[in-house]
Amino acid sequence: MNAMMTSDDFVAALREIGATRYHHLHPFQLKLQSGELSKAQVQAWALNRYYYQSKIPVKDAYILARMETSELRREWRERIVDHDGDAANPGGIEKWIALTDGVGLDRDYVLSGEGILPGTRFAVDAYVTFVRERSLLEAIASSLTELFSPNVIGMRVRGMLEHYDFISPETLAYFDKRPVQAKRDSDFALDYCVRHARRAEEQLAVLDALRFKCSVLWAQLDALDHAYVEPGRPPFDVWQPGLGGTSP
Amino acid sequence: MNAMMTSDDFVAALREIGATRYHHLHPFQLKLQSGELSKAQVQAWALNRYYYQSKIPVKDAYILARMETSELRREWRERIVDHDGDAANPGGIEKWIALTDGVGLDRDYVLSGEGILPGTRFAVDAYVTFVRERSLLEAIASSLTELFSPNVIGMRVRGMLEHYDFISPETLAYFDKRPVQAKRDSDFALDYCVRHARRAEEQLAVLDALRFKCSVLWAQLDALDHAYVEPGRPPFDVWQPGLGGTSP
Repeated sequence: MNAMMTSDDFVAALREIGATRYHHLHPFQLKLQSGELSKAQVQAWALNRYYYQSKIPVKDAYILARMETSELRREWRERIVDHDGDAANPGGIEKWIALTDGVGLDRDYVLSGEGILPGTRFAVDAYVTFVRERSLLEAIASSLTELFSPNVIGMRVRGMLEHYDFISPETLAYFDKRPVQAKRDSDFALDYCVRHARRAEEQLAVLDALRFKCSVLWAQLDALDHAYVEPGRPPFDVWQPGLGGTSP
Repeated sequence: MNAMMTSDDFVAALREIGATRYHHLHPFQLKLQSGELSKAQVQAWALNRYYYQSKIPVKDAYILARMETSELRREWRERIVDHDGDAANPGGIEKWIALTDGVGLDRDYVLSGEGILPGTRFAVDAYVTFVRERSLLEAIASSLTELFSPNVIGMRVRGMLEHYDFISPETLAYFDKRPVQAKRDSDFALDYCVRHARRAEEQLAVLDALRFKCSVLWAQLDALDHAYVEPGRPPFDVWQPGLGGTSP
């Protein structure tokens, strides 16, 4: 039988997971921000990550559907607005499409999802399934990777602007608002998890949910590294550098 | 609007998918059967594939649940018996555990599923989800990879026995009955798909289901190759050569 952690120890354990397992440490991410990737490899990253972006409001809708008070739903609904936009403001998904436009990918091809890696699809779909099938506490906990994104976003944007002549600030506009949104969202989710994990087992389930989510992000970069950086050829049906899907 | 294929053309299209996309062509598979892998790499393969084996009767149960006649269910039930065994005969899962025993993995560790790659879990779970959520025709079609396994099994078993001194015929007993079972099962499934794909769209859905299943098998070997063959280190929490999980 495990003892309950204090709130401080629990939060420290969550932050330790981020410090060691968040995808800012992944070799592909390090290559991306230090300018070691070719344009085609950056395109592959943008194309595959679009699928992840496109599923974020879907998983948030599953969370919304399971919340039982208007107060909670109003709070969580903001995430969907941030990604889907409203009459006045483009959402994160539209800004991600500006990014794939900016690196020269064909928009219809990106939206079709046709050329993405099976490893991307399996990992992202596993995330949506996790959120649907696990407890609400675990579903919310799986969003806690946002605790770790604000710092990393600054480093990634600076690195990409410095090293790639095909990347402009407009192309990376997606990231402009993310640090503020991510801080607001993850502060709320962290507070929710601290208050609702009332038994040791629930604290452990929260830690496991965050580890799971880190593996979802990590596996996406593994698949990119394997298919587009390491020697060999990408699997069937996926986007091939220089072939269909890039603008002329 | 697509035209309906003749049965012969439809079967030829299915076999063409196998000839080009089945995992007998995967670099990891070629290395496995030609003796190029270390014992630790063979252990990683056995450990991860156990997770796939363990989910086969689960996905077959979802198919069984959706069949509406005793005749169909009696036929499909054989697959579950083959993998789960009966009072007289060990099933395929038990024989796979003999394989993981044989290569020196700790049985409790294997059964726990703890050390498997996220890429393995995501791919296998995607297969189970596909079978649950798609049409019965597509679910049955996704089993058609068994059309291509009998030839490959012979080559794999001969290669492994020849090249690895830690592999015995007893260790590979799992494969003894598979060619006969796979032929019986895939003959039935092929006949079912030919008779029930009555529109061009259904034929295309069957072809897509087989492509999907090939990508499930392929992605599992991609994950093994990336984690255990290519330079770098395996992801978090997964089995590490020489560490916990191997018998002393």
